[in-house]
Amino acid sequence: MSPNQSVSGEARIADVPGPDSVAEAHAAARQRELTKPPGALGRLETLAVWMAGRQRRVIPRPVTAIAIVYAADHGVAVRGVSAYPSSVTAQMVAAIAAGHAAVSVFARTLGVDLRIVDAGVAADLSAIAGVVHAKVRHGTADLSVGAAMARYEAMRALDVGREQAARAIDDGADLLIAGEIGIANTTAAAALICALLRRAPARIVGRGTGVDEEGLRRKVEAVSMGVRRVRRAAISDPVEVLAELGGLEIAAMAGTYLESARRAVPVILDGFISAAAAVLAVSMAPNCREWLIAGHLSAEAAHRVALEWLRLQPILDLELRLGEGTGALLALPIVRAALAMHAEMLTFDEAGVSRSG
Amino acid sequence: MSPNQSVSGEARIADVPGPDSVAEAHAAARQRELTKPPGALGRLETLAVWMAGRQRRVIPRPVTAIAIVYAADHGVAVRGVSAYPSSVTAQMVAAIAAGHAAVSVFARTLGVDLRIVDAGVAADLSAIAGVVHAKVRHGTADLSVGAAMARYEAMRALDVGREQAARAIDDGADLLIAGEIGIANTTAAAALICALLRRAPARIVGRGTGVDEEGLRRKVEAVSMGVRRVRRAAISDPVEVLAELGGLEIAAMAGTYLESARRAVPVILDGFISAAAAVLAVSMAPNCREWLIAGHLSAEAAHRVALEWLRLQPILDLELRLGEGTGALLALPIVRAALAMHAEMLTFDEAGVSRSG
Repeated sequence: MSPNQSVSGEARIADVPGPDSVAEAHAAARQRELTKPPGALGRLETLAVWMAGRQRRVIPRPVTAIAIVYAADHGVAVRGVSAYPSSVTAQMVAAIAAGHAAVSVFARTLGVDLRIVDAGVAADLSAIAGVVHAKVRHGTADLSVGAAMARYEAMRALDVGREQAARAIDDGADLLIAGEIGIANTTAAAALICALLRRAPARIVGRGTGVDEEGLRRKVEAVSMGVRRVRRAAISDPVEVLAELGGLEIAAMAGTYLESARRAVPVILDGFISAAAAVLAVSMAPNCREWLIAGHLSAEAAHRVALEWLRLQPILDLELRLGEGTGALLALPIVRAALAMHAEMLTFDEAGVSRSG
Repeated sequence: MSPNQSVSGEARIADVPGPDSVAEAHAAARQRELTKPPGALGRLETLAVWMAGRQRRVIPRPVTAIAIVYAADHGVAVRGVSAYPSSVTAQMVAAIAAGHAAVSVFARTLGVDLRIVDAGVAADLSAIAGVVHAKVRHGTADLSVGAAMARYEAMRALDVGREQAARAIDDGADLLIAGEIGIANTTAAAALICALLRRAPARIVGRGTGVDEEGLRRKVEAVSMGVRRVRRAAISDPVEVLAELGGLEIAAMAGTYLESARRAVPVILDGFISAAAAVLAVSMAPNCREWLIAGHLSAEAAHRVALEWLRLQPILDLELRLGEGTGALLALPIVRAALAMHAEMLTFDEAGVSRSG
């Protein structure tokens, strides 16, 4: 690893490159020459041009994607904010590693290398084969009553995500997907969005995986308590906010987005949790936004709020609310098709087709 | 070919099977058992259950799709209703056959067998390799001033589509996609929708591939003239309406949808032209609707009108307005992922994961 590929320390956070606007302009010109009415392939044209700017090539190469699922537990689960018990996090890690979960099936179907990382599950997962063990701590503390983790733990969880991104890129990925599993993590994600974007909990908290009316009330209350504490302490540094409201897997996802952007590798965002991680990453390094593709709009209502702040338009809208990276993976064939179209179609001149009269 | 696989004659139009509601119910029950919150995979769950009803299996097989692009010309093009001259139809047939058009690239990327059929191009295409020659006539007549074709020609064009569907199914397809190329065919499609669904041309006619303001005015006028003639003559039989307002490729697409439904094979619809063909097919055989998946919502505003009448919810919304089958092909990976998820995920019991509390 060369010195400029270092993945620890904070100095490089601001060191995120921008896209190549010249390559983008040339790619847009090429789109106007291909044998179709200008603009007729809508979002696929935009994606191809966007990718040209990121790969710094008028005709971007086909992408090799790697998906990384981060798992962690949340102390706030004891407040009854989820329809599932915390033990499900570890069980789902095993299911993902064994290839039986939704994200496993989609990754296999699409030929994507899938990695599962324990960033902070509250159980010993050492017996599960195929898991990357990077546990920062055994789940966070209850964010509603105090800091979810120490600042050094938040930094460490960010670094877990940076390290995994660096490894995936070194392994040949030029497109990354980060997913998550963590019972109660829509509570932490909602709290982060409320604190970072100054929104009211009642407008951001949703049902997640399907909590009932009473659970939703408890969830709003837990988020409100955590956010109120952050506001009273006038905490605005994103890493401090992260430490207060947590999400070891959310931190790792944000770290993946930061490192990916630093290495000029685009990412496809997943659902609501992923958007919260992206808000965190962009709060730390605004240029990071330039490397994000919104894979889909989830059924969690506040996902839209986060995507609007990120100024991202989702590719898919399939009423998903699963996470794991499933929505990001489902958007991958659209990205692949956009790149194939851009590279393989002929121009009007090359094909001998008459232009618009 | 056995007698009940006959593809000509009209008797079998009413003979469209319905889905297997028992298989659907069992598939829906299976979805509730898989290791995810119930409903968390949104539209993918609906698609998997829908396909179970069509394949009459609780766990449907992976699908083998074949895409058929029908090409034909439109006499109404002389009215200046399109941004492109009619000669582009033949040029695009050559580009598709050579593998350079958008639909060719998408089919190749997705591993889908693509067939291109001359249903009525106003040029001699015999020199183009790889084209199925089934020309009914050299383009239609101008629908604004008289019948686009004779009734027997409309019947013949429907049969071209039926025959191609039968051939594709005999070749192993259990999912069909029909696309089209035909300069001025959004004019014919708009006229068909206006006549069949009793809508006002000004609300249905759009810019197609990108006609200018003056061209749009001419297009509304041409559609209005044709639709007025049909209404004055009190023509309501769908085949008569088709003969009056035309579209040899639209007829062939409708024939494909009818035969596909008769053989209990689902189809993925493409854009606006495809929706007009589906409206025609469903007007002829209402049960045909049960075999249709809406691949996407196109940028042509009236596409929504047709899909609402068909009671279909599109999978994608990518601002496409190209046709050729491109939008239907882009939806295929979502259908494939839905089936893989349904077949390959484990249930809570199988995976040893705790259920919702």
